[in-house]
Amino acid sequence: MISASDRAFLDRTYDLAAHAIGNTSPNPPVGAVVVRDGHVLGEGFHHRAGGPHAEVNALAQAGDASGATMYVSLEPCDHVGRTPPCTRALLDAGIARVVVGALDRSGHGNLDRLRERGVEVVVADDAAARDLIEIFSFSLERDRAYVALKMAMSLDGYVTSRSGVQEWITGEEGRLYVRDLRIAYDAVMVGAGTVRIDDPQLTVRPATHRLREFVRIVACEREPLPPDRRVFLPLPGYARTIVLAPAGARATFSPLERVADVAYVGEESAQALDLPAALRLLRERDIQSVLCEGGPTLAGRLIAQGLVDRLYWAIAPVLLRSDAAVPVLAGADLGGAARAVRFDRMERFGRDVMISGTLSDV
Amino acid sequence: MISASDRAFLDRTYDLAAHAIGNTSPNPPVGAVVVRDGHVLGEGFHHRAGGPHAEVNALAQAGDASGATMYVSLEPCDHVGRTPPCTRALLDAGIARVVVGALDRSGHGNLDRLRERGVEVVVADDAAARDLIEIFSFSLERDRAYVALKMAMSLDGYVTSRSGVQEWITGEEGRLYVRDLRIAYDAVMVGAGTVRIDDPQLTVRPATHRLREFVRIVACEREPLPPDRRVFLPLPGYARTIVLAPAGARATFSPLERVADVAYVGEESAQALDLPAALRLLRERDIQSVLCEGGPTLAGRLIAQGLVDRLYWAIAPVLLRSDAAVPVLAGADLGGAARAVRFDRMERFGRDVMISGTLSDV
Repeated sequence: MISASDRAFLDRTYDLAAHAIGNTSPNPPVGAVVVRDGHVLGEGFHHRAGGPHAEVNALAQAGDASGATMYVSLEPCDHVGRTPPCTRALLDAGIARVVVGALDRSGHGNLDRLRERGVEVVVADDAAARDLIEIFSFSLERDRAYVALKMAMSLDGYVTSRSGVQEWITGEEGRLYVRDLRIAYDAVMVGAGTVRIDDPQLTVRPATHRLREFVRIVACEREPLPPDRRVFLPLPGYARTIVLAPAGARATFSPLERVADVAYVGEESAQALDLPAALRLLRERDIQSVLCEGGPTLAGRLIAQGLVDRLYWAIAPVLLRSDAAVPVLAGADLGGAARAVRFDRMERFGRDVMISGTLSDV
Repeated sequence: MISASDRAFLDRTYDLAAHAIGNTSPNPPVGAVVVRDGHVLGEGFHHRAGGPHAEVNALAQAGDASGATMYVSLEPCDHVGRTPPCTRALLDAGIARVVVGALDRSGHGNLDRLRERGVEVVVADDAAARDLIEIFSFSLERDRAYVALKMAMSLDGYVTSRSGVQEWITGEEGRLYVRDLRIAYDAVMVGAGTVRIDDPQLTVRPATHRLREFVRIVACEREPLPPDRRVFLPLPGYARTIVLAPAGARATFSPLERVADVAYVGEESAQALDLPAALRLLRERDIQSVLCEGGPTLAGRLIAQGLVDRLYWAIAPVLLRSDAAVPVLAGADLGGAARAVRFDRMERFGRDVMISGTLSDV
């Protein structure tokens, strides 16, 4: 049974975990709180891969935790990785009760190990807790980077009133939300058209520190990309920008190697960018998750190929329809095989609406 | 000061008023509750134009109301219309305190009349109360029917994956919401293309009774409309369907007069439908509010001419982009003079999202 105080302490573990979002990859963010008689003895979160887990940090702060309850956003691990198993740490500390936010789909009876030793175990299975490990769970199952697609459109489905101009159709609050997303995902990606037209920096502003370097990615087709774009300017805290290019266009892209980390994708003859191969390549480089911010053509292609896992869809309170207006998706035909979304979040950001949801494969 | 119990009784007046939505035009729906010492003595709402006002119904049920508080969703009237002024009824009944949900913009010191006689008056100015009189307030200021536009689109802005097919892209819960809207607005309107292609009945299903007849309207351009469409079938509780046609196309539309109430709009030479004139004509026929349900061309024209006052925008969790997909708006160029919306409601209906907002003139 989850009491009201259980609920409050569990929610606190999610807040703690949220401190580490963006830093822990390839591990998930996790938070933990140790409580006895209603008093918090210790709190902790997992700071970065290779460092102590959240439970261990919380126990260290608690000191004597015998008879206490451990609240933890994710099922404690039971294996020896770069750190000892947390289940053993909990048993050694004399924890009497464990309240878990979400199960770890890679776990194998971790909680039974605790139950066998007389620890009371409660699993909340909270959506908020599952959200924290969504990308981590995904990466257990697929051999590619998780892709979140963030688009901003008018209420009638356009990103701008005419091609070639950049317009801020969403407001300030929405842009701050996008800033948080850029911090949370391992990398930010746009198509070459966006770099040519909008010349974005793809940085986090106001600036912040992240334990992992920020990574910017440009997905290209055969057309060359000017090396003087702002996305290629070196910045402290940022990795060299990755350019994904078809392997068959090596001659076109070799001049870019001076300013970017050009990754040639697919067969040596490939004239088009093999998107599944590109996402596998990113995963091999320890980029577990990517926030794609358009443009419409890259977005349309990713969706058509079933490569988008989550949508963040900002809707601005304007109507832009004209023959010159640019629709939010392009470059692919989804008709007939319409993609189904499951909306799971709906928020207001100032004047805008943000809808989020997961996309299912066809 | 509004106490928690004031809040509860005031909210009750809105529920009571909601019973009458769709029946009271050209009057607004109003609800009233009489309370003394925390006990409800009487409740009432305004049933239909010409009938007693909400306050009078509530007082009739209360019997002796001396010293009681009157909660009423709208500022009481102070004029002799088809019924005596409510302010006098309140004073005669010995009401000691009046709590009002919203002010009546056509009122002239009604509440002062009460204050002068020692009645305590509190104005909550609630959004819910203002919503109840939105159309009524509008009609005080403009000489045309209020237009709410209801569209349903995919997340990427399309109403259907190809022209000429009717698809239910929104779910059952959303359709029940539209049913409520059809009851609430004086009339339902679609463009001729929708009648040609989808052949809708535009009825309220499951059926319900409304004190006012239901009214269906088809807005036409010069192209003829087949008289065998389902919208022209006579139904109990429904007025003869109104066809709005350009006056210059009289010869084309006269055959329709057999099955419909054809209203010729504009100058005798008019070859295109004059939409402002059409909405003035509807108002002259005591149709104070219209729910337009598309199609994209009529919707685009209404928006481009600044004739849409509220949007109900259903967003289905699908992506439909293809070259054949039909965008949610057509027939007009909004680019450059993009229309600004103010979102004020955001709801989930099953799998769908419904965003509502008001549209400001350019």
